[in-house]
Amino acid sequence: MSSAGDSEPFTEIEHRVIYAETDQMGVVYHANYLIWFDMARTEHLRRRGVTYRELEEQGVFLAVVEAAVRYRAPARYDEIVRIKCWPRDVGSRRVTFAYAAREAESGRVVATGETSLVALNRQYVPTRLPEHVLALLESLPD
Amino acid sequence: MSSAGDSEPFTEIEHRVIYAETDQMGVVYHANYLIWFDMARTEHLRRRGVTYRELEEQGVFLAVVEAAVRYRAPARYDEIVRIKCWPRDVGSRRVTFAYAAREAESGRVVATGETSLVALNRQYVPTRLPEHVLALLESLPD
Amino acid sequence: MSSAGDSEPFTEIEHRVIYAETDQMGVVYHANYLIWFDMARTEHLRRRGVTYRELEEQGVFLAVVEAAVRYRAPARYDEIVRIKCWPRDVGSRRVTFAYAAREAESGRVVATGETSLVALNRQYVPTRLPEHVLALLESLPD
Amino acid sequence: MSSAGDSEPFTEIEHRVIYAETDQMGVVYHANYLIWFDMARTEHLRRRGVTYRELEEQGVFLAVVEAAVRYRAPARYDEIVRIKCWPRDVGSRRVTFAYAAREAESGRVVATGETSLVALNRQYVPTRLPEHVLALLESLPD
Repeated sequence: MSSAGDSEPFTEIEHRVIYAETDQMGVVYHANYLIWFDMARTEHLRRRGVTYRELEEQGVFLAVVEAAVRYRAPARYDEIVRIKCWPRDVGSRRVTFAYAAREAESGRVVATGETSLVALNRQYVPTRLPEHVLALLESLPD
Repeated sequence: MSSAGDSEPFTEIEHRVIYAETDQMGVVYHANYLIWFDMARTEHLRRRGVTYRELEEQGVFLAVVEAAVRYRAPARYDEIVRIKCWPRDVGSRRVTFAYAAREAESGRVVATGETSLVALNRQYVPTRLPEHVLALLESLPD
Repeated sequence: MSSAGDSEPFTEIEHRVIYAETDQMGVVYHANYLIWFDMARTEHLRRRGVTYRELEEQGVFLAVVEAAVRYRAPARYDEIVRIKCWPRDVGSRRVTFAYAAREAESGRVVATGETSLVALNRQYVPTRLPEHVLALLESLPD
Repeated sequence: MSSAGDSEPFTEIEHRVIYAETDQMGVVYHANYLIWFDMARTEHLRRRGVTYRELEEQGVFLAVVEAAVRYRAPARYDEIVRIKCWPRDVGSRRVTFAYAAREAESGRVVATGETSLVALNRQYVPTRLPEHVLALLESLPD
């Protein structure tokens, strides 16, 4: 995986399309893009200084409450895809991340999207995001 | 699976949540809802009189170009979920289906969403939906 | 799903192959057969009188420790597959289930296999299977 | 991904466990290990000088006909797993690969296994592996 660097407001990961992700149309099955977005979001948190694993250990769960994807062009087996992730809207209880995935060689956009997540406590009751997580996320891209 | 009947403008399927669909939060991982929507859409076509398998054999492919999901409540392992599907907007080249998934016992809505699909030919070039498919889909719910 | 009946030593479920299970070879991706076996095993327990969900609620977890699959013929999109499951070897701490999956229309065997599971307690330490579960499983096929 | 190097008879890849791979037991769902093995096998071919994508373009398909996995210890979310792959038995029509997966930090073995694949032509009829592929695979580990 390649990083956009800690000072960047976005994170970019690389993923090589695996056979399990394809379907009989010969392209990546559409549900898998949400998994890629999740991978990019996880890395974004890690690079900003907190891992989602630690968050869960501290009793903070982030649950996806809304997701949207626009499929622009097919992604194919063995291609390298770069998925960019950045926080679009950060609130004390709900965060929206945006994503753009490109096929690495040609640069063509394969998909864009966003997902909104809410913070839950161990009883899965909505709660506030911890201050340090909010602070990490609040530096938005220009 | 249970059918809403051929005369109904929507289709409802039943699905029992399997272990593979859960994640460590103890609920269904969010990407799987798109698979459920696909299952419901497939059954809708079948009950209206055409199978998606036949469509592909005839050289018509339906590719998802847009998807949106609102997660309302978690679905859990071994619960029976009823997924309702109906065509919301039918054009000659693009069809939008809407979905609502409920946990069967309580009736609670677990997710709603929609997906838009375009017709492609064997060369994966956008094409018109065959007339008989359009006719089957065009009876919208009231 | 169809049942072989409570008096039968095996359980048979029906599953229609979904698009998400296919890969670009136009057949079911091989890892998915383990999910089908899991579905059949779950139904076997249910029909013998205990659900796996209840077992977990009682603090008994069944973890797969060994799996083997022989792929005999491809299964394809939209085909109905019948997966038969029966306990092959039942011990107080480890149970082995065997499976045979057939395409329903032709009857061709698509895969056979087995999985072995051990019982774990809430601390994920190996433990004995509860007596009532052992009793349910111990009636082996002839 | 890290490589064991072209002169090595085995290939080792790195994979960080993603949320989608976990189940409600809090560990990686067992079917996913077959996907990891596939990823390692794909990289092994690439590092020996042929990509599986090229093989398919040339009309050679490798279909899994047998798979076996021994689960030694759970793999957990966000852990880095190293999956080692090497050809155990190379015949003109059938190749068996062996695998060992370890959690990177502790070195504990999480799973071992093997899969056997046969070569198929475009009509999915068994065929001989191309000579250059055989040659690439035939240098076995000591």
